[in-house]
Amino acid sequence: MSDIRSVIVVAGLGNGGGTGASTARLFAKEGYSVALIARNPDQVNKLADEINKAGGQAHGFPAASYSYSDVTAVFQKIKQHSWPGHAKAEVRAALWNAGGGASGGPAWGPFLSVTEGSINNQVEGNIIGPFAFSREAILAFQNNEIDSVGRRGTLLFTGATASVRGNVTTSAFASAKFALRALSQSLAKEFGKQNIHVAHAIIDGGILTDRSADRRPSGEAEEVYLANEDARLNPDSIAKAYLYLTNQDRSSWTWELDLRPAHEKW
Amino acid sequence: MSDIRSVIVVAGLGNGGGTGASTARLFAKEGYSVALIARNPDQVNKLADEINKAGGQAHGFPAASYSYSDVTAVFQKIKQHSWPGHAKAEVRAALWNAGGGASGGPAWGPFLSVTEGSINNQVEGNIIGPFAFSREAILAFQNNEIDSVGRRGTLLFTGATASVRGNVTTSAFASAKFALRALSQSLAKEFGKQNIHVAHAIIDGGILTDRSADRRPSGEAEEVYLANEDARLNPDSIAKAYLYLTNQDRSSWTWELDLRPAHEKW
Amino acid sequence: MSDIRSVIVVAGLGNGGGTGASTARLFAKEGYSVALIARNPDQVNKLADEINKAGGQAHGFPAASYSYSDVTAVFQKIKQHSWPGHAKAEVRAALWNAGGGASGGPAWGPFLSVTEGSINNQVEGNIIGPFAFSREAILAFQNNEIDSVGRRGTLLFTGATASVRGNVTTSAFASAKFALRALSQSLAKEFGKQNIHVAHAIIDGGILTDRSADRRPSGEAEEVYLANEDARLNPDSIAKAYLYLTNQDRSSWTWELDLRPAHEKW
Amino acid sequence: MSDIRSVIVVAGLGNGGGTGASTARLFAKEGYSVALIARNPDQVNKLADEINKAGGQAHGFPAASYSYSDVTAVFQKIKQHSWPGHAKAEVRAALWNAGGGASGGPAWGPFLSVTEGSINNQVEGNIIGPFAFSREAILAFQNNEIDSVGRRGTLLFTGATASVRGNVTTSAFASAKFALRALSQSLAKEFGKQNIHVAHAIIDGGILTDRSADRRPSGEAEEVYLANEDARLNPDSIAKAYLYLTNQDRSSWTWELDLRPAHEKW
Repeated sequence: MSDIRSVIVVAGLGNGGGTGASTARLFAKEGYSVALIARNPDQVNKLADEINKAGGQAHGFPAASYSYSDVTAVFQKIKQHSWPGHAKAEVRAALWNAGGGASGGPAWGPFLSVTEGSINNQVEGNIIGPFAFSREAILAFQNNEIDSVGRRGTLLFTGATASVRGNVTTSAFASAKFALRALSQSLAKEFGKQNIHVAHAIIDGGILTDRSADRRPSGEAEEVYLANEDARLNPDSIAKAYLYLTNQDRSSWTWELDLRPAHEKW
Repeated sequence: MSDIRSVIVVAGLGNGGGTGASTARLFAKEGYSVALIARNPDQVNKLADEINKAGGQAHGFPAASYSYSDVTAVFQKIKQHSWPGHAKAEVRAALWNAGGGASGGPAWGPFLSVTEGSINNQVEGNIIGPFAFSREAILAFQNNEIDSVGRRGTLLFTGATASVRGNVTTSAFASAKFALRALSQSLAKEFGKQNIHVAHAIIDGGILTDRSADRRPSGEAEEVYLANEDARLNPDSIAKAYLYLTNQDRSSWTWELDLRPAHEKW
Repeated sequence: MSDIRSVIVVAGLGNGGGTGASTARLFAKEGYSVALIARNPDQVNKLADEINKAGGQAHGFPAASYSYSDVTAVFQKIKQHSWPGHAKAEVRAALWNAGGGASGGPAWGPFLSVTEGSINNQVEGNIIGPFAFSREAILAFQNNEIDSVGRRGTLLFTGATASVRGNVTTSAFASAKFALRALSQSLAKEFGKQNIHVAHAIIDGGILTDRSADRRPSGEAEEVYLANEDARLNPDSIAKAYLYLTNQDRSSWTWELDLRPAHEKW
Repeated sequence: MSDIRSVIVVAGLGNGGGTGASTARLFAKEGYSVALIARNPDQVNKLADEINKAGGQAHGFPAASYSYSDVTAVFQKIKQHSWPGHAKAEVRAALWNAGGGASGGPAWGPFLSVTEGSINNQVEGNIIGPFAFSREAILAFQNNEIDSVGRRGTLLFTGATASVRGNVTTSAFASAKFALRALSQSLAKEFGKQNIHVAHAIIDGGILTDRSADRRPSGEAEEVYLANEDARLNPDSIAKAYLYLTNQDRSSWTWELDLRPAHEKW
């Protein structure tokens, strides 16, 4: 299979310093070509540039929205993309890391402040979009041969505390994240026997993003700063979890794992 | 409070022989006026007639769809309804028993046969509609005094096996039912302290509907027929569970219970 | 079956003002003869007296411990007991409401303070004893005819928050309560098809016991006192839940429900 | 820390071809000295020899039983052990992979065939022993410095399908495994803030052991044999999961993951 390039599709980049970007960078280093989907064209292009300059291969595919048709269209464009230097490429991994975003209404808040727009936004980012994304990913995987560790492809989903726990200010967010988890479980059960691996990570804590790192007080000792990693997830570590999941051999696949900082109260 | 009539709003009647109808009948017997919501006008009117003829009080409120605006509008109409013989009425209970229905695409099936219409349909019946319904119910409850058992109102949701388990043919249905469960849990946590009770019933088995009862072979002994209740849920028994939940005093509220036939394999 | 007396066996009375005692009183009022098991002979006899004086029928059966052999022996004694005024009696319900007790070491606390005695104590009260108790209950139920609502008997277990959540000070308690829950689930699945109902209640909050009621400040208004029922479970309400479970017809059985005060934070 | 040797303690070796042995071998290759605990002296010594001959370092510590005192004693002996060639050693990882074993009564079977001996055996192997083991492991870890990835030590537990699901023939086994899971969750929550990582793996499927491999029909093609890894877990892959967990940095720790073969029905 040495002449076939493996592609990972990463949807959802947040602020560019989070899980999606870290996963893109790590898989690029591991030899994947990276197709980046996000609603912000500048963002996908900026990250693609960064990866390409670092010696990896990436390309940005902006999506107008996470509607069923927009997600389907952008994924189909990815399938037809020619990756320079590779005669053939196969989508071998896909991560849905997007969510509801902030447009349309806030994702959190007291139930009576949740608007129809908030709900639709969460539904699109966590249900409609992922259904379209999963469909295209699975159709792609079904065309692949089984690789050396026993898989045709890996479909990853980023979950949250709210994936397993509704709470007082998370009615819309938790509903959507519960739904995403159900989708991932259903797919894991249905497509495992086709050697397609579906996994779901429960991110149970705040993320240590670039922006947060910038806020390190100038006078603060390194120990103090590093101590923050006891309290916030490093997106590079989440990316490592995704890589570990993608490399598990067929005999021992994980559907779900939780990830939280050492000092998190839960 | 003897001069104030309690109203239950029941949304979703299925084929008219199921959980929604049984709940409407039982609560009517218990002295509630019953507001019936369903997408089929004939169905709500037929059941309202039946209840009225039996000495209860019911009124049908057809909804064009379970969209946010349609559900909001029909619930607001219910709040303004004059119940003959009662100078004042309060919505004290509400049951969301609707689901995705069959229009737009099948609710079950292999993932690759799930259409955008199926997903939208499940989302509307199990997420969008319930969010609008819950909002109107809670706003109504907040206006009520705390009653003798310590509550301002009871909001009930009908769940399913798929509320807690995704499976090979239930990706769309389970996603939507997981979401509904998350909504119910979030609301239970947020509004308990306002003495509003939110509960979720996991119906884990097939329902013994009127139609099924009709299919009893003419030559079959009663014992054989009755034995079916070991294998299928009687909707009257589900209604009793809802009544029990509605009567729990404030010290001991149930958020979630499961209901299944004695002989169910699970 | 009018000439056969139904017996409920209640194991575990705590301080005499809790769930076990409330269940005993309520079932006595419902026409059950009540067999009381506890490690404190004075306690079982005092409650039996109280129930007998109130017109019910109860008898105390002290157990030296909750070891396998002691629990087995005391249950077998109950089966052979002659209930005055009843030619025949059948054990139709059984509640395991006991736990680890305080002897042998504390039930809660930091892990490093948990002693071997604490663990053994929790194991005996929540695993060993319940296994012996369940065995005798099920053997008794298997001899019963199916009653009018479709059951041979009902086996109830009192769980706790710790039945579903380990936490920083509950390693021994949660381990034992998780185990009890697993037992109840296994039994529910195995014996449902024999029309034996097994149920598990998660008591998620503090109990409003007699002693707590005594602590009502003399100057406190009744409203303030009653408001406490928003924050603590009334054992009489838990007993009502057990009665509801015992009366569910065969078509719709609950394995598990949670019970918590309206204002509980969870 | 280059002059301090890291030790992993592995308790429970099954038939010598399973998870415990694979974990021992893998961690030995990663530079850990391996302390092996099992009830069969021949088994621990045989595996220790094998690892030592392969260039690793291992030593066998037979335990007379998994009672609290025996487990405590053997772990304390490990702490005092001198590892040839290393002036200083620290217990940095510990895996409880033991279970109930077969003595005392069968682990599975209909509830009424479960003996007191079966229960005691499951309790000892999955509750009493692990409490003692965890105590000694945590006391050891508390003496360690925080290492480069942010931890003082890693405590691993092998769970099973029965850790999260009671079933018709698993009352004793599931009770014990639920309890073990509760212990692991309680410890994870309590000791995370001390940078001690506690994790629990749900092994949801049959294990591909040496013995099974031996049964490969002589005439069977390699493809056919390898295909079995779609249906049974390779213990080497479970060991890799344990190594991954042990290497997670402090920002992103997993308490629980499931592991199952690609084709497993669940």
